[in-house]
Amino acid sequence: METINQGGILAASGFRVGAARCGIKRAEGEPDVALIVADRPASAAGVFTTNKFAAAPVHWNRKRVPSADIRAVVVNSGNANSCTGEQGAADVHATAELVGELIRCEPGQVCVASTGIIGHPLPMDKLREGIRQAHADLSAEPEAACQAARAIMTTDTRPKAFAVSSKIAGMPFRVGGMAKGAGMIAPHMATMLAFVTTDAIVPPDLLQQTLQDAADTTLNRVTVDGDSSTNDTVLVLASGSSGAEVRSDGAGLEEFHEALHAVLEALSMQLVGDGEGASKVVDVRVTGAVDLRDAERAARAVAESQLFKCAVYGGDPNWGRIVCALGYSGAQIEPGRSTVHIGEVCVLERGEPTGEDAAEQMAGERVSVCVDLGLGSASATTWTCDLTEEYVRINAKYHT
Amino acid sequence: METINQGGILAASGFRVGAARCGIKRAEGEPDVALIVADRPASAAGVFTTNKFAAAPVHWNRKRVPSADIRAVVVNSGNANSCTGEQGAADVHATAELVGELIRCEPGQVCVASTGIIGHPLPMDKLREGIRQAHADLSAEPEAACQAARAIMTTDTRPKAFAVSSKIAGMPFRVGGMAKGAGMIAPHMATMLAFVTTDAIVPPDLLQQTLQDAADTTLNRVTVDGDSSTNDTVLVLASGSSGAEVRSDGAGLEEFHEALHAVLEALSMQLVGDGEGASKVVDVRVTGAVDLRDAERAARAVAESQLFKCAVYGGDPNWGRIVCALGYSGAQIEPGRSTVHIGEVCVLERGEPTGEDAAEQMAGERVSVCVDLGLGSASATTWTCDLTEEYVRINAKYHT
Repeated sequence: METINQGGILAASGFRVGAARCGIKRAEGEPDVALIVADRPASAAGVFTTNKFAAAPVHWNRKRVPSADIRAVVVNSGNANSCTGEQGAADVHATAELVGELIRCEPGQVCVASTGIIGHPLPMDKLREGIRQAHADLSAEPEAACQAARAIMTTDTRPKAFAVSSKIAGMPFRVGGMAKGAGMIAPHMATMLAFVTTDAIVPPDLLQQTLQDAADTTLNRVTVDGDSSTNDTVLVLASGSSGAEVRSDGAGLEEFHEALHAVLEALSMQLVGDGEGASKVVDVRVTGAVDLRDAERAARAVAESQLFKCAVYGGDPNWGRIVCALGYSGAQIEPGRSTVHIGEVCVLERGEPTGEDAAEQMAGERVSVCVDLGLGSASATTWTCDLTEEYVRINAKYHT
Repeated sequence: METINQGGILAASGFRVGAARCGIKRAEGEPDVALIVADRPASAAGVFTTNKFAAAPVHWNRKRVPSADIRAVVVNSGNANSCTGEQGAADVHATAELVGELIRCEPGQVCVASTGIIGHPLPMDKLREGIRQAHADLSAEPEAACQAARAIMTTDTRPKAFAVSSKIAGMPFRVGGMAKGAGMIAPHMATMLAFVTTDAIVPPDLLQQTLQDAADTTLNRVTVDGDSSTNDTVLVLASGSSGAEVRSDGAGLEEFHEALHAVLEALSMQLVGDGEGASKVVDVRVTGAVDLRDAERAARAVAESQLFKCAVYGGDPNWGRIVCALGYSGAQIEPGRSTVHIGEVCVLERGEPTGEDAAEQMAGERVSVCVDLGLGSASATTWTCDLTEEYVRINAKYHT
């Protein structure tokens, strides 16, 4: 498996992409509509937010995937079309209809995603104009993928994309993706939006299962602020145009899973690295848990502790905040068996403080915490960022 | 029932209080040891943190209360004696022994509490000297209660105390309390430390039950940052010296419960009002939930949402963040039945946005959110504060 330095969602063949600015997003001059079109009906899978106030486009997509027959994905930023009542559902339908007219397919072959402010109706006139422009702009050139990655950004400071190439039985294939998200980022569909394309041949049910598995250990392990959004959506489209095939008996699945996992993991790291106001990236690894669920909840409690995240920002090796979060995580814990490392330095060994100073381990832009609960063999890693004054400024001022 | 303007934990008769500075806490000139002594053996009850890394003094107290026979409570600030291993347990024992020698009782009649940094051994020489000074300083004058309320502070900006008088069968009694806590404040024993005295006669088992009930709807409904501390402790001591009696058949219990609830509620509000960096107090009331647990988890999710708390700070009526938090709270929700008010303004009515502007309702120092889930008859209120740049500054710099 090799990393591809450019191309993002256009690294895989069989797709064209367009982007346009229609004025829904405030940031001047920035594109806010992206359109991904598969040249032929694509195999598609998706995972979505578990938030009970799921946005109108999430409800629409849930009915469409997995599918062997998806033609396009249309995305707007600046407005989430969430908590928009019946009007919101009608607007999604109208959006899919317009794309269907333009590329000559049924509305049900079009997936729709939105991100931005919650509770405001979509400005449909603007969006219609944006979709027409994006359609006119469709291209398979790498630059189009860059523009699309910009078009889905909200408070992100940089576009997020990644691609790899790999082989199944000697046949090369590619997987590329883009993502957006900087705030309202938490497990249970950790990204707000991510779109992945591949030119492998993958049956829809296997594509769905592989996506679910890969998302569980990548995007669902990322947290910026513990707020799971109403719009989280990951869609994967497989064009099959490479000829590399994942067969329904599972042959080739391992190679495809590895490639998809690599793309989702890279996008996850880009998400936390660009967390709102973030200055540092933190990985929290928990080992020795009695089961996977306990390992995940312990790691997540540390990664979501406001106090710990402030300590990371301040470069303060205040490991009491790590231990405190473990203690209220709900995971099974015996204090006398817990060992905590910050970077290379052991600060707590089987419940006894070592007196070692971990200040240097907290000083850089990358901080690693490793907790051994000493009870079992399950482990999990979570990624997060620090909590800074800039996060507060951004979110006190990102006004309605 | 009437509020008493001064006296705090000395409003009730039968107690003396002392405070001293021994230098464990950094803040110059500030007292950091408090000693509460009951003139005669007192009925006592306590509720404690649910954090699995409970501090050494919490383990000690759990073995002592409820009891009919407690003589003293000794508290230090600046060091939590938490995650201090076997040395921590030995230090608690030595502390209780010293108090026992000074007031002539068994160590087992002394409760111990600590608050401050986690993971550092208690400087016992300083603490011993502080306890001797506090003992020499014992007094029943209101000023002593003020000094004790200062002595238990850490990042608090002001002391927290409250007292009421009431009657049982015509016999007057009093309940007074003090509390500390500004960060690492979250439900499941929401305060870090609170101490309450009363001169009513209350059997230990009834005192314990009444404390548990009253704490569940006051201190356990407060959150500053969602971090449940390792040291949370509430202790109530009843001297019985007023002659007003709660009988074991329950006569007088209602009056006592009302008074204790009033004191704990007032202390809870003082805690959030002095939350680290807080500029506003927020109450989140959820009605129409299917059961109490759902009402509590929905209210808590909103009160702990970083994004919502930043919006409160910015005075931004971004109600999408309220709805988002409800959606991931885990509570049973049907979006089409949910109604949300900010102050007097209805922003979402049965799932449809009203388009009303709630900016004025977010402008003041007190913000009220009311959510009707429209599903049942259970309700709960949670109190919190906003999330500000100052919170981040305090917690990035409160160094080890």
